[in-house]
Amino acid sequence: MRIKANLVLLFWVFSCLFSSLSFAELASRFPSSAIRAELGRKQSNKLYEAKYFTQILDHFNFNPQSYQIFQHRYLINDTYWGGPKKNSPIFVYTGNEGDIEWFAQNTGFMYDIAPHFQALLVFIEHRFYGKSIPFGGDKDIAYSNATTLGYLTSTQALADYATLIIDLKKNLTAVDAPVVVFGGSYGGMLASWFRLKYPHIAIGALASSAPILNFDNITSPYSFTNTITQDFRSESENCYQVIKRSWEKIEMTGKRSGGLELLRKSFGICKNYMDADALEGWLQTAFAYTAMTDYPTPSNFLNPLPAYPVKQMCKAIDDPKTGNDTFAKLHGAANIYYNYSGTATCFNLNDSSDPHGLDMWGWQACTEMIMPMGGNNKESIFPESEWSYSRRAAGCRAFFGVDPRPNWITTEFGGHDIYRVLKRYGSNIIFFNGLRDPWSGGGVLKNISKTIVAIVAEQGAHHVDLRFATKEDPKWLRDVRQMEINIISNWISQYYHDLA
Amino acid sequence: MRIKANLVLLFWVFSCLFSSLSFAELASRFPSSAIRAELGRKQSNKLYEAKYFTQILDHFNFNPQSYQIFQHRYLINDTYWGGPKKNSPIFVYTGNEGDIEWFAQNTGFMYDIAPHFQALLVFIEHRFYGKSIPFGGDKDIAYSNATTLGYLTSTQALADYATLIIDLKKNLTAVDAPVVVFGGSYGGMLASWFRLKYPHIAIGALASSAPILNFDNITSPYSFTNTITQDFRSESENCYQVIKRSWEKIEMTGKRSGGLELLRKSFGICKNYMDADALEGWLQTAFAYTAMTDYPTPSNFLNPLPAYPVKQMCKAIDDPKTGNDTFAKLHGAANIYYNYSGTATCFNLNDSSDPHGLDMWGWQACTEMIMPMGGNNKESIFPESEWSYSRRAAGCRAFFGVDPRPNWITTEFGGHDIYRVLKRYGSNIIFFNGLRDPWSGGGVLKNISKTIVAIVAEQGAHHVDLRFATKEDPKWLRDVRQMEINIISNWISQYYHDLA
Repeated sequence: MRIKANLVLLFWVFSCLFSSLSFAELASRFPSSAIRAELGRKQSNKLYEAKYFTQILDHFNFNPQSYQIFQHRYLINDTYWGGPKKNSPIFVYTGNEGDIEWFAQNTGFMYDIAPHFQALLVFIEHRFYGKSIPFGGDKDIAYSNATTLGYLTSTQALADYATLIIDLKKNLTAVDAPVVVFGGSYGGMLASWFRLKYPHIAIGALASSAPILNFDNITSPYSFTNTITQDFRSESENCYQVIKRSWEKIEMTGKRSGGLELLRKSFGICKNYMDADALEGWLQTAFAYTAMTDYPTPSNFLNPLPAYPVKQMCKAIDDPKTGNDTFAKLHGAANIYYNYSGTATCFNLNDSSDPHGLDMWGWQACTEMIMPMGGNNKESIFPESEWSYSRRAAGCRAFFGVDPRPNWITTEFGGHDIYRVLKRYGSNIIFFNGLRDPWSGGGVLKNISKTIVAIVAEQGAHHVDLRFATKEDPKWLRDVRQMEINIISNWISQYYHDLA
Repeated sequence: MRIKANLVLLFWVFSCLFSSLSFAELASRFPSSAIRAELGRKQSNKLYEAKYFTQILDHFNFNPQSYQIFQHRYLINDTYWGGPKKNSPIFVYTGNEGDIEWFAQNTGFMYDIAPHFQALLVFIEHRFYGKSIPFGGDKDIAYSNATTLGYLTSTQALADYATLIIDLKKNLTAVDAPVVVFGGSYGGMLASWFRLKYPHIAIGALASSAPILNFDNITSPYSFTNTITQDFRSESENCYQVIKRSWEKIEMTGKRSGGLELLRKSFGICKNYMDADALEGWLQTAFAYTAMTDYPTPSNFLNPLPAYPVKQMCKAIDDPKTGNDTFAKLHGAANIYYNYSGTATCFNLNDSSDPHGLDMWGWQACTEMIMPMGGNNKESIFPESEWSYSRRAAGCRAFFGVDPRPNWITTEFGGHDIYRVLKRYGSNIIFFNGLRDPWSGGGVLKNISKTIVAIVAEQGAHHVDLRFATKEDPKWLRDVRQMEINIISNWISQYYHDLA
């Protein structure tokens, strides 16, 4: 039996960093040809070539099962590489919880800066995602139960990256080439942890929108929803109020005779099953993910979206044409997120398709990734929802038969008092955060030392810095990227200096 | 079936950091009452109290087996502790491959400096040793095969320490108390790796005689035997020559009719089985371990020994009374190591007793701890013995059914180019090495940065700095310890400064 998390119902339970949840039937086209055409730079026809490395199942155990191997996928692009003789750098993306092709396609920054650095680009997939599936590559086996899923952990993934990078450098006779790791979101957490745990392999890390402090109540469990609240409220007070008051209206309508049918028609939901809770979850997903991807230019990360989509949503809500019709206003807003391409005929709330292969985040959220999250705040744009560890734990036991280890991440990677702990320890990490990103509340927002620095963009969203550059990028975004380039340049110069 | 490594035959194969190998039936009395009396300091009647922590079997996996628990022993002494309100420090010994009581008893330095620092003393046992045995505390099960032994790894041990320390501090309401880790030999490797991997838990590490560079051919595989050679040669050229030429004589005698009986009588070996190889191994053990424990004062670490035991051995060899009788000379030398207390009636070469519980180092040497070691050097005091990885691997497959992972330690912990890698990374590690210690060749012998420093004592042996102080300690040793105290003081002062 293959376990498949119902991400809709588990949304608050699993606090998925980002799950696609694209209920509308939308074409998945990426990277948008418009954006790529704008690049106007030398670029090979293919963004990357896929290769496989024979990886060991368990790095931290020596029992017979641990020696099982699997094919570990990575993507490589040597178009710009200066080669091993020049010790030209290797830029490695530490893959997150999904198909690595999707992350490569959404990390244009590495492509954009590769020519300047003459860098080799490598994107390594995270075990248990995409095509890097242990147990013979068979998801039906790998995802079947806790005995096989047990090997899906952040520590194993980091050790995979270490092993693969060392082997790759040997094979390229590029043992002395400096490696810089990049990552966004969970991939950013991995990038920063990789620099902390494997400084002998990576000379530095760009950790973009990495909520490494969202554990063990280091930061507020309400920061995620608070930021979403602020994002919408910053566009218009009316927009915020309409959304905030809508939940009760939906619930009350759902309880009325014929109310569900009214809701279904108002929101253009397909004719299969729907209830008020599902509708609320569907709308909350739209608001949360639009806030996360509130980019200043058109994008297609989770779904195709216009520039500044939160502003567009509020425009729909504030539209005088819809008068006092809350449902029509919300429908207009939902259309921005779920149907910007205009091709959807109806929205299927039961759709559990997973185009980017994010399925197994549910397992990670049931074991290590216990990131408290709630909306218990009078101001919150969402209904009250107190964080409850015991509820999470009960859900995990019921669903996966596994007990979370809620203190493990801070035991292994730290987090408490990080400003003091790393003040005199470690070096060469950039933590980027955009303050419009709901995840920014769990990020490192102040410089820790001269070489462990925070770049904070007030108007930035979820790892916006890592996206392909476009001509329309605002100045603040170009400045952020330039700062990152300068810092990475310094790391590499210093490395060459030390090597000489 | 319980696997018990025959450490005699596997000596060169397994390169045990230190295995007791005390073939003579000698009383084990430690710490010597003489030394303790000399301390003349306030000291509780007991060196420590033993406690147990419920530890998880596998930190890096979430399959059902990983959740098994075991009772993890640690020793604690709060006699000198200033307590949680003052944030007085906690000094933690990261236990090595044996009974933790033995290491606590041989790490008097921590007791000696505890009053000055008002420090709490904690000695944590390494999993699979002493009384910290997974699988219900049953060695017959835990040691039975690779399926259970697989959990015996350095990474699991470090995670054990992290978990235990965090829990202990919580229970003591001493969350903000600074922790400094101490360790000697493999315990020193663990201490330095702990600071590198868990800087959020330990503010600094004193890694004494930690051969962290003895992997992956970073340092010469001959350094171990070269140092032993130098140690004996530094006492007298004749001593060195007698030992160097003895091997051929023993072999030739062994092959002669009645030769084995002659050897047996010459060396006072008991009447059970003996062959020339076993005798050579027995002698080499004596020379190697005497070199390791060539302390300037009487000691009882591996065996009871006089001050400067290498000098005493050479005195026996150079003794004109024995004329040209090589065997009599070697017998005299062996008596220093195996029978200093004078109570042995005969030496039992088949004795595989293991008073300090070091048994399972054989497993570690077959999985992670691949430390190349040979004696292929014209000058070597030992017979030629080229390091062969394939021989090790074959032995490990035959004995434990396990394949070593020879590159794992450097993948996980680094080591290559350590001076460059850590030049601008990390802080607060002292690497102590005594150059008379055969393990010093694999140690960090130069300062890496202002805060990752090497203390090198030309006349020092294996973690001599960690031993109880005595009135007879030479000035250089007192100076070493004072330097260590000063550096640790600085770490703690800086911590308090940052905390304020």
